[in-house]
Amino acid sequence: MPPSLADLTPTQARLLREQTIELPSWAFGNSGTRFKVFTTPGAPRDPFEKIDDAAQVHKYTGITPRVSLHIPWDSVDDFARLREHAAERGIELGTINSNVFQDDDYKFGSLTNSDEAVRRKAVDAHLRCIDVMDRTGSTTLKVWLGDGTNYPGQDSIAARQDRLADSLGRIYGALGEDQRLLLEYKFFEPAFYHTDVPDWGTALAHVSALGERAVVCLDTGHHAPGTNIEFIVVQLLRAGRLGAFDFNSRFYADDDLVVGAADPFQLFRIMHEIVSSGALEATSGVNFMLDQCHNLEQKIPGEILSALNVQEATAKALLVDRAALDAAQRSHDVIGANQVLMDAYSTDVRPLLRELRESQGLDPDPLAAFARSGYLARAEAERVGGAQASWGA
Amino acid sequence: MPPSLADLTPTQARLLREQTIELPSWAFGNSGTRFKVFTTPGAPRDPFEKIDDAAQVHKYTGITPRVSLHIPWDSVDDFARLREHAAERGIELGTINSNVFQDDDYKFGSLTNSDEAVRRKAVDAHLRCIDVMDRTGSTTLKVWLGDGTNYPGQDSIAARQDRLADSLGRIYGALGEDQRLLLEYKFFEPAFYHTDVPDWGTALAHVSALGERAVVCLDTGHHAPGTNIEFIVVQLLRAGRLGAFDFNSRFYADDDLVVGAADPFQLFRIMHEIVSSGALEATSGVNFMLDQCHNLEQKIPGEILSALNVQEATAKALLVDRAALDAAQRSHDVIGANQVLMDAYSTDVRPLLRELRESQGLDPDPLAAFARSGYLARAEAERVGGAQASWGA
Amino acid sequence: MPPSLADLTPTQARLLREQTIELPSWAFGNSGTRFKVFTTPGAPRDPFEKIDDAAQVHKYTGITPRVSLHIPWDSVDDFARLREHAAERGIELGTINSNVFQDDDYKFGSLTNSDEAVRRKAVDAHLRCIDVMDRTGSTTLKVWLGDGTNYPGQDSIAARQDRLADSLGRIYGALGEDQRLLLEYKFFEPAFYHTDVPDWGTALAHVSALGERAVVCLDTGHHAPGTNIEFIVVQLLRAGRLGAFDFNSRFYADDDLVVGAADPFQLFRIMHEIVSSGALEATSGVNFMLDQCHNLEQKIPGEILSALNVQEATAKALLVDRAALDAAQRSHDVIGANQVLMDAYSTDVRPLLRELRESQGLDPDPLAAFARSGYLARAEAERVGGAQASWGA
Amino acid sequence: MPPSLADLTPTQARLLREQTIELPSWAFGNSGTRFKVFTTPGAPRDPFEKIDDAAQVHKYTGITPRVSLHIPWDSVDDFARLREHAAERGIELGTINSNVFQDDDYKFGSLTNSDEAVRRKAVDAHLRCIDVMDRTGSTTLKVWLGDGTNYPGQDSIAARQDRLADSLGRIYGALGEDQRLLLEYKFFEPAFYHTDVPDWGTALAHVSALGERAVVCLDTGHHAPGTNIEFIVVQLLRAGRLGAFDFNSRFYADDDLVVGAADPFQLFRIMHEIVSSGALEATSGVNFMLDQCHNLEQKIPGEILSALNVQEATAKALLVDRAALDAAQRSHDVIGANQVLMDAYSTDVRPLLRELRESQGLDPDPLAAFARSGYLARAEAERVGGAQASWGA
Repeated sequence: MPPSLADLTPTQARLLREQTIELPSWAFGNSGTRFKVFTTPGAPRDPFEKIDDAAQVHKYTGITPRVSLHIPWDSVDDFARLREHAAERGIELGTINSNVFQDDDYKFGSLTNSDEAVRRKAVDAHLRCIDVMDRTGSTTLKVWLGDGTNYPGQDSIAARQDRLADSLGRIYGALGEDQRLLLEYKFFEPAFYHTDVPDWGTALAHVSALGERAVVCLDTGHHAPGTNIEFIVVQLLRAGRLGAFDFNSRFYADDDLVVGAADPFQLFRIMHEIVSSGALEATSGVNFMLDQCHNLEQKIPGEILSALNVQEATAKALLVDRAALDAAQRSHDVIGANQVLMDAYSTDVRPLLRELRESQGLDPDPLAAFARSGYLARAEAERVGGAQASWGA
Repeated sequence: MPPSLADLTPTQARLLREQTIELPSWAFGNSGTRFKVFTTPGAPRDPFEKIDDAAQVHKYTGITPRVSLHIPWDSVDDFARLREHAAERGIELGTINSNVFQDDDYKFGSLTNSDEAVRRKAVDAHLRCIDVMDRTGSTTLKVWLGDGTNYPGQDSIAARQDRLADSLGRIYGALGEDQRLLLEYKFFEPAFYHTDVPDWGTALAHVSALGERAVVCLDTGHHAPGTNIEFIVVQLLRAGRLGAFDFNSRFYADDDLVVGAADPFQLFRIMHEIVSSGALEATSGVNFMLDQCHNLEQKIPGEILSALNVQEATAKALLVDRAALDAAQRSHDVIGANQVLMDAYSTDVRPLLRELRESQGLDPDPLAAFARSGYLARAEAERVGGAQASWGA
Repeated sequence: MPPSLADLTPTQARLLREQTIELPSWAFGNSGTRFKVFTTPGAPRDPFEKIDDAAQVHKYTGITPRVSLHIPWDSVDDFARLREHAAERGIELGTINSNVFQDDDYKFGSLTNSDEAVRRKAVDAHLRCIDVMDRTGSTTLKVWLGDGTNYPGQDSIAARQDRLADSLGRIYGALGEDQRLLLEYKFFEPAFYHTDVPDWGTALAHVSALGERAVVCLDTGHHAPGTNIEFIVVQLLRAGRLGAFDFNSRFYADDDLVVGAADPFQLFRIMHEIVSSGALEATSGVNFMLDQCHNLEQKIPGEILSALNVQEATAKALLVDRAALDAAQRSHDVIGANQVLMDAYSTDVRPLLRELRESQGLDPDPLAAFARSGYLARAEAERVGGAQASWGA
Repeated sequence: MPPSLADLTPTQARLLREQTIELPSWAFGNSGTRFKVFTTPGAPRDPFEKIDDAAQVHKYTGITPRVSLHIPWDSVDDFARLREHAAERGIELGTINSNVFQDDDYKFGSLTNSDEAVRRKAVDAHLRCIDVMDRTGSTTLKVWLGDGTNYPGQDSIAARQDRLADSLGRIYGALGEDQRLLLEYKFFEPAFYHTDVPDWGTALAHVSALGERAVVCLDTGHHAPGTNIEFIVVQLLRAGRLGAFDFNSRFYADDDLVVGAADPFQLFRIMHEIVSSGALEATSGVNFMLDQCHNLEQKIPGEILSALNVQEATAKALLVDRAALDAAQRSHDVIGANQVLMDAYSTDVRPLLRELRESQGLDPDPLAAFARSGYLARAEAERVGGAQASWGA
């Protein structure tokens, strides 16, 4: 018999009920590859419609009450109105993501550029993000840079690090006391010889230099092949600097597939380390976000599925028999310890989660319920005229 | 003393003089990543201006007398006029590249699509390419597909292979007797779970089924990490099916950097296998093409440099002392054999190639000569109005 | 409710009951890395004791009735006696694996060596394997080579291919009419610059040249990072040349972990392609073998777990609703099609398999039953004196 | 004309003259893979003979005056005598490498083991290394661990980090004031699911916690595919924690090929960062060591070639026109900056280095001179009886 809600301890049940996953506004717009961005009927045309779509995900899953904004993609004249629009739909505005990679000026770098005028422009773009945070109530500024070089010799790797440190210092200094800076690393792309923040070590070095309110964002798709991501989770938690996840998945180089789609076992192992260290508690300061695009699949269902995949991995991680695991580990029972973990992973938690949703007044099957709702057909019919929002705008 | 022209055997000198490298028309337009396409002042606005730019590369290097076209990007009303325009500049129109990845209809596949109407449309696009070949005198149709899936289960891998085989058969059947089909494989992108032609084995299986005038295109950037590319060169030559190279380079996942920029030793090893097998002879049927874009660097200099890099690797490969190599190999002298190869690689062939160019009435230093010519400034001044050509159009 | 035996169709149930997995004799001896081979009390000391251990795996799982032998590691004076010893324990002798990588003569290659005397010795070693096959009743000769080079230039890649083709031809010619040759490829190791059979394309080229009774062995651990293995399964089935699997798993470079331990979803996807193509039928000619070592974990439990992992992946693959999958694929319902697959993967099939085992008179929990049996303690007590068998001997 | 000694600045010439590379004692013994260790006639049988062989490398290259020892492989009763033996041959005893991966007790970890007795044993092994340092005059203790796990769940990643930190602290506390601890990281192997010090970030975290005399060792073969190693060089220099290089090279997973053999351009880029930051100065505290084995090639020539490869890369790095590079970088001249670097790389520095050696009374061609010396034949004749030293003993 698969486990039911009644089989959970109060803490397990509470953690499942309290878990939240932040949605990216850009997941609802058109997206694609350098080869082609396919258009989707009914795609939102402005930040308000993106919020509407995000609210659908929350309506059916019950665990996605926040939306990340990307500035300037999601810039509006009146953020108070956007915040209110969101609140009316049960949504909070979350992390503010800066964008300093889509202006011709940033061709050779933003926060690392040797041209002081460009560097100042990039810093100013972040200061404007902090203004947005003040107006939206967001407490987190996420910095991901496209900075890097394509060719050996193109620029000085060392000098760029110094300029980066200086730029980040100026941004950090402008944060309010309740605001924090989240620095994201990425192994490659859009720069191909070197990126200026390629790995967790570099991100950690910079946030450590900045101060206590600077933390690292771990994007699950931003590592070299074969990297043990759960090990990095442990290291960043050990250093007290794991600020957030950007969840997604990939088979090879792209980092935009639905989280858990490529390697559900890896997602489970990551959540196992999170649960083991207590970082699932809302007070831990670790924010669970999605950072994905949906190039081929429908976007709202894509986000619903992503949230469900994280929730399933979390439920399985909570089911790990930690006492048995510890005992097997201490006796060096390799297969025994592995099987304690696999017992939880092999468990079908979908009945349990259906039960959880019903206990919260939700439909047990979010994808089916959304499909039945006719929302997509209405959006296609109503969202006529105007320019569709896309990943790049 | 570095070697001079006089040190070469007549065959070595002839092979260097006869070597040609085909340029891609799309290298001259704007290009970028899914994150941003940066604009470049003076970028060409139509196929005629692309030919003008390509002619500059040939003017200074003397080894790039052909240009590949991409259909429909390079579609013009009057291909005879384009051909004449090229001929006036010393340029021939080369390989025709089909494009069946930039239409909303191809979202779920082109030659592999389960929707017969879409599949017919994709086949027809290739038939139009054959029409273009008839008008341009091109003898090669290059087929690269963006086909594949992003998620396990999305489509049947096996059924797609069958549809691909059928579609290719229809295209192959429409080729003239002097025309050939070149099938290119790619490890990933724009599809991320599976691509329908991911490796040389798959490409070889399909071209073998088609017939004698179907061959494989090896793009140096389209392999898994760690793949020994020169081994594949040997295999395809052994099977008599190596039709062409698409040259470029990459450090990790992108395949668009200047050939030889990321790993010049690998390029040398590839050319060593080419020279060793006699495939450098113009009669071998192996076409040497560039397939690159220049996102950050200037485009004409980027192509000049690429041609020079291939030429340098070729010159070094020609310098390998094959008798000494064979002797060391047969006596299992590991270091000795390796050092025979490295002797050639360590040789500075730039003086030799400067001498070669001077003997052909060219400036010894193509990059400097082009920079002095003022061509870029004139292009910027003259190419005002109209839409710049870009990688994607 | 998880599915029970009664929920299966007769065909599904039959396929589960008929499935067999071949065990490698070498999994029961000591093994390790180039850094250290750890010793294990009770490890077998000769082929007879290896058979005893393998019989334990079959006794508890009911699905491992054959054992692969490695020659000369498993050479005995009297193979008839070994065969009888096995038969008494319900075990058949299966595939014969040649070993031409552990003799100083093979330092620079075996079937590819430029020294004709060494090459003849390597061919002869295979002829002796065929003799063993005649005596054991084995119908399959598996050829995996350590051949390759460590340094560019060390030997001629092309000449080695020619010598390999010639050597394989001589071996193939010596096979009886009911015997087949299975050629295994490996991306790297123990050669590090190039291996002579690195990929499925090379293996397919050679077996195609040999004749109808030559097929390819796919070892799941022998690919470049990011390779889509199930795609290769489809290709080899399409070519009619998939002869066998060597199952194991790996996170990065090693290929010796328990199958399914590193990426259980990948194993499921592979089995899904097997089931989809009908290759699970015993008549398909595809042999499912394990090729693993157990460096840290106990060996017999390691093999039991491996067999169970393959069985679980098979059961899940059988549960895929193929009609629903096909419908979703044809309507390009990306998420729908993916979810049909994931529904099967997310199902907990352990109760079903426990039921299956009980219906066969087996203990429902093989690992626990073996642990309770006291076999390991007895082996430790009885196997005193003599040299323990190890991976390398 | 290639550059000559007279073309160098006094500083460039001095840096070349002063450069030293430390040899590993284990490079002279037999080595291999988990598949086979091939035996070599004349291989040394004890640490004294290893020193003799190392002295040959120094005799012909003039730049390898130190030898690293591996304890217990190189344990002798009288280290004073070994030191004297070395001194008589112009060799100093260098870094002491601990070995806590070749004892059955360390099967589940050494400094990270949950069994306190094993952990104490591993710490004690390091204390004995410090004793050896006191007797040999070595100032550096290098710690590389085989610790890690093969299966998810096998042990607690986090608890192992805590135990590692504690163990390292005990070792660090026992160092003398003039001694330092060098912590090496490795991406994988011999553990395959996780290693306890997999990356530079982890190594940096630990040495930072230890104190000022703890630094990181960068082994060029210990990274994930696609990793930009020169970036890590810059980061570790920036943190003031780059203690040493272990040089070697690899194409895919092995890390034991001759440095510069797989990717000479990468070696040049690494040396370019070293030169750019001033870390080539002997006072920088960065030690350049080889960590290689020679499985197929002759061992003394393998070490000579390795030293020469590092020297060539260094000479090229010194030739980079730093003023021109800086100017091109500042003007964002991508191709220009890249070409400044490539100019140095394309230069043939072998004549310059021959000249340098002649100015030092050495033969201009070390490999040929060693081959002529007849040393290997004498060693084969004299080193009869006794057990050959091997990588693992």
